[in-house]
Amino acid sequence: MSITRLALDAMGGDNAPGIVIKGADVAKAKNPDLEFVFIGDSERIKPYLSRSIHLKNASVIHAEDKVESDENVSQAVRKGKQTSMWKAVAEVKAGHCDAVVSAGNTGALMAISKLQFRPMEGVTRPAIATFLPTEKRQVCMLDLGANIECDAENLVQFAIMGAAFTRSVLDVKDPSIGLLNVGEEDQKGHEYLREAADILNDADSGMNYQGFVEGTDITKGEVDVVVTDGFTGNVALKTAEGTAMLITNLLKTAFKESFLTKLAYLLARAAMRRMRSRLDPRVHNGAVFLGLNGIAVKSHGGTDEIGYANAIKVAADLVEHGFMPDVQKALQKFGSISDRQADKAGD
Amino acid sequence: MSITRLALDAMGGDNAPGIVIKGADVAKAKNPDLEFVFIGDSERIKPYLSRSIHLKNASVIHAEDKVESDENVSQAVRKGKQTSMWKAVAEVKAGHCDAVVSAGNTGALMAISKLQFRPMEGVTRPAIATFLPTEKRQVCMLDLGANIECDAENLVQFAIMGAAFTRSVLDVKDPSIGLLNVGEEDQKGHEYLREAADILNDADSGMNYQGFVEGTDITKGEVDVVVTDGFTGNVALKTAEGTAMLITNLLKTAFKESFLTKLAYLLARAAMRRMRSRLDPRVHNGAVFLGLNGIAVKSHGGTDEIGYANAIKVAADLVEHGFMPDVQKALQKFGSISDRQADKAGD
Repeated sequence: MSITRLALDAMGGDNAPGIVIKGADVAKAKNPDLEFVFIGDSERIKPYLSRSIHLKNASVIHAEDKVESDENVSQAVRKGKQTSMWKAVAEVKAGHCDAVVSAGNTGALMAISKLQFRPMEGVTRPAIATFLPTEKRQVCMLDLGANIECDAENLVQFAIMGAAFTRSVLDVKDPSIGLLNVGEEDQKGHEYLREAADILNDADSGMNYQGFVEGTDITKGEVDVVVTDGFTGNVALKTAEGTAMLITNLLKTAFKESFLTKLAYLLARAAMRRMRSRLDPRVHNGAVFLGLNGIAVKSHGGTDEIGYANAIKVAADLVEHGFMPDVQKALQKFGSISDRQADKAGD
Repeated sequence: MSITRLALDAMGGDNAPGIVIKGADVAKAKNPDLEFVFIGDSERIKPYLSRSIHLKNASVIHAEDKVESDENVSQAVRKGKQTSMWKAVAEVKAGHCDAVVSAGNTGALMAISKLQFRPMEGVTRPAIATFLPTEKRQVCMLDLGANIECDAENLVQFAIMGAAFTRSVLDVKDPSIGLLNVGEEDQKGHEYLREAADILNDADSGMNYQGFVEGTDITKGEVDVVVTDGFTGNVALKTAEGTAMLITNLLKTAFKESFLTKLAYLLARAAMRRMRSRLDPRVHNGAVFLGLNGIAVKSHGGTDEIGYANAIKVAADLVEHGFMPDVQKALQKFGSISDRQADKAGD
């Protein structure tokens, strides 16, 4: 295996830079072929590196400034090239690193990645995607918040990108696609959902489109790719996380109820841990920006070192899978929708 | 306690009329002060009644026709007054029953209830609301699917109605309100969310508005009322249900893993059952139509008799609480938003 070099925005996230360096340390312990460049306030980064086990000689690039988590996108971009986020993305753009990871402001990371990496040919809106656990294999869900308002063409592009991404990374042959809606009947939901369904339903689309799916279908694993706008996707993802958290807490309380339940926990501990790790949001930490000419992975802002190490693993896996040419090819094959519609109209 | 008389749409839902009558039987066993009128195909209803324990002498009103679950709203309304759903709502409208329960087509039930009950004065869009379990007390969430597209005024009305409903039914003094969004920062999300936030934030609004909340906050119980559009609310609710189902199934599998985990289950069984019942979607079955001059409760279409009995309980509780005057009063107090804005402009 060759070396994978990642640019880490050391100042992004609630507990930066500590969590970033600790997370990298955890990741490096598992995968010695990883190399990191930490970008941020070198005075704050270095003490953590000296206390780390595996990162004593890691590279640091100093950045004067950083993007705040509550800054809006235009403010963040206006701050320009002195922020740790900008410099981290620039390391990838310049070819010094293979991918960038940041736990910072999502909107700013998308904007800065878009400005430097540029969208792939034909992509109007890059999207944020992640894999989630289901009853069957993992499901790819997008968009998770990059695009609050979407039209039919955006959703169709998300479907194409999500399918190519799932094919490449999860090795699923012909990923099935569902559009998230409030019912499975054709007449339900927003107008742009019906338009997107029409395009995906077209026999010529080459897509394995399965129709509308509902919220309950996401975790059933009924389809491989769930496509939605960034507002709905973000709310759905966070609602799922919240529900999982609620149940985990209720479960903990239940096991603490009495001597017998405590004994039960001891007996079932290994099985419970396996179950928990399958659902652990930290294990699923690391969302990917699709549709850009570069790999950017967004970690949860509030994660711990285990979660951050997983976001690093996602980035390293993506580098290894080289999914970008697959996504670009799928987009080209499908062609721009306006071209297709023009062709149809001309028939 | 006085008698509560409920009109049940016996033909609504996946397993009608069997589930409806079995559910009513379960409900009547727990609460003998309930009386039912079953509306639907009397030839199909009567055999179930004769096999029931508590409903041998229940009333039946024959209906020739029924609303299909996949029918769109205009088709359902065009079928007119011969459907079981229409006739069930009419029983309440005529004052023969206190509330209607249906597990049929949600859109049709809303349209038919709206046509007969009429919206309360000042309500532009009635909404569907339900209570959900959280880490703390229950949260009221609305809209859950009646209004796919919403504007700021709709959301503000949902907030007013949801707060009055929660105050009345859960006996919460000054229910706190959150608007569901993709982040807590002021500049996030759709334009109409920011507009609604401005109105609710107004010191004169008299509302206990807490700001934007995210998907993770729903189950934390951070606020008493979560307000959103019907599309997002429906997806969030179903995603939460799907997540709960996934975890419950994983838990079952975990307990079946080995002799030790099976033993653990035996020891923890009572605690696990209590936990499950708190999350059981059947226990939370029964969504309420708010903003109408009549009580209509929607049961899940695919529920079983336990779930249906809970929807009946919701309807009976609502009759007992007499929440409608409270909602009407809150709406009047707030006044129409256009009036308020006109007043402000004239200041």
